[in-house]
Amino acid sequence: HWNRHECPDQEHRFNELQEKLLILEKNIGYLLPPADLLLNFALKSLGAKIVHLMTSDTYQSKDAFSFFGFLVKQPAISPDIVIQGRSHPLPGRCWPFEGSKGRISISLPNNVLISHVSLSHIPKRISIHGTISFAPKEFSVYGRKDLESEESLLGTFLYDEDGDQLQIFKLPDYVAGSFRYITLQVKSNWGNPDYTCLYGFRVHGKLEK
Amino acid sequence: HWNRHECPDQEHRFNELQEKLLILEKNIGYLLPPADLLLNFALKSLGAKIVHLMTSDTYQSKDAFSFFGFLVKQPAISPDIVIQGRSHPLPGRCWPFEGSKGRISISLPNNVLISHVSLSHIPKRISIHGTISFAPKEFSVYGRKDLESEESLLGTFLYDEDGDQLQIFKLPDYVAGSFRYITLQVKSNWGNPDYTCLYGFRVHGKLEK
Amino acid sequence: HWNRHECPDQEHRFNELQEKLLILEKNIGYLLPPADLLLNFALKSLGAKIVHLMTSDTYQSKDAFSFFGFLVKQPAISPDIVIQGRSHPLPGRCWPFEGSKGRISISLPNNVLISHVSLSHIPKRISIHGTISFAPKEFSVYGRKDLESEESLLGTFLYDEDGDQLQIFKLPDYVAGSFRYITLQVKSNWGNPDYTCLYGFRVHGKLEK
Repeated sequence: HWNRHECPDQEHRFNELQEKLLILEKNIGYLLPPADLLLNFALKSLGAKIVHLMTSDTYQSKDAFSFFGFLVKQPAISPDIVIQGRSHPLPGRCWPFEGSKGRISISLPNNVLISHVSLSHIPKRISIHGTISFAPKEFSVYGRKDLESEESLLGTFLYDEDGDQLQIFKLPDYVAGSFRYITLQVKSNWGNPDYTCLYGFRVHGKLEK
Repeated sequence: HWNRHECPDQEHRFNELQEKLLILEKNIGYLLPPADLLLNFALKSLGAKIVHLMTSDTYQSKDAFSFFGFLVKQPAISPDIVIQGRSHPLPGRCWPFEGSKGRISISLPNNVLISHVSLSHIPKRISIHGTISFAPKEFSVYGRKDLESEESLLGTFLYDEDGDQLQIFKLPDYVAGSFRYITLQVKSNWGNPDYTCLYGFRVHGKLEK
Repeated sequence: HWNRHECPDQEHRFNELQEKLLILEKNIGYLLPPADLLLNFALKSLGAKIVHLMTSDTYQSKDAFSFFGFLVKQPAISPDIVIQGRSHPLPGRCWPFEGSKGRISISLPNNVLISHVSLSHIPKRISIHGTISFAPKEFSVYGRKDLESEESLLGTFLYDEDGDQLQIFKLPDYVAGSFRYITLQVKSNWGNPDYTCLYGFRVHGKLEK
């Protein structure tokens, strides 16, 4: 009777193919993160908007470039960048708020039954300091039906500094009802005392029928 | 003599690898659609331009957002977006015209012997209504040597609502000659009575020698 | 004892899988070029800037489009495009300088111990003339600690017209020290007498501690 030990050559070839597949799967997972295949309602191109009155102020860096004797400041990036739906943002193209606690509120284009949210940051690998200390760490998500109604807590999550760039978070099953406004409340970051920087936030689910 | 039934373990491993390959091939096909590997002459960055006098008017949505008591309109998207060559457009980043019949005319940067055209839309999967009712359905393509000459019909095609995002259409072999102006004439859409929205259109072929 | 000749069917299946893997690997290599996984300090979004006083003038094309009787010029593209870090630039979205010799100087956001640089161009396949005659060919890279110090030659390299779109060049091991300013000096191009066009340039390495 045939068994695996009698086919050492085959075994070797299988393992070789298997290893190559794993590398390809990892690269594809990076190029096409699972959240890219989910409906995203917090998308500026679909009509989602930042509610500035309920959003933290943009952090103004005190850094300025001395350039042939002139001091040049980088123009501040607006929170709109967070809802532009980019899959692979460039390092530095994030919205900064002061310290480690802040919030961003978004008006969705429709009433949405929310099932998941996702949050992105650049990976450590392409961060010039080798760390992502200004990435959000613990955060809560709140929903509102309209601007007059009370906020409902939809969940509290942790962005993993060593995880994927674009991380998906499932809301608890008991969260019911549809929402028109959503708030991302950052409670801590990965260590930077000056500011926290948000690259992207997405809201997944389905339209209220 | 050896035969497949004597190697049940091998058989299983082959099938496993085969299945993983199929998933990877599908994802790569999405990330790098075949039309991305063809020359595209209808590209704004190469000097292609919309001929506005021969292009339908942009649809002005009657929707407006009530926002803290103000009515805010989404700014209209210009037909330029159709010739920007984006591979993976964001939902909503399309040029709308009223109803289900309309046209867009493009001046190419060179005289082109046209072999294929391609047309893109977002897939149903990332459309918030789960349908792509405002995608074009039946369309014809016309060419002109110059603005004074008559239009030649280059072909009539169907954009498949369940097909790939970026679909390639081959022109009949009898279409000969080179063209400087090309018109996409949409004859019907996938059901939306209000407007049709175009994401991307490309013109493939080679330079006239 | 089992040997490969007794399993012709297996052999065939292995080769089939192997071939499919090679195609996927090639496509992934195109979608995710190795330089995309390296830190890039010459990135506008991180604060890198073009030093215009030490950069060639932008080439002004004499071409103009006659458009319903009006002469329309393409707006000139600024050298900023070279440090925007795009992985897959559109044909024509490059910064042109006159002739085949020119330079671009970049102020980095930090002092960097440089190990590699990379240079990108569109592949011949998507160039409308089938050639990339306006791509850089031989080039040198220079570094400076500050605007007052002398330039150090970091290496001289050749951009391969038939190679990958985004090519990485390793600096010689004896290049030591960190630099704040970097200059790309193009010494020849692939044949176009009128102008040379730069799509992207990156600077890899690590922060000076």
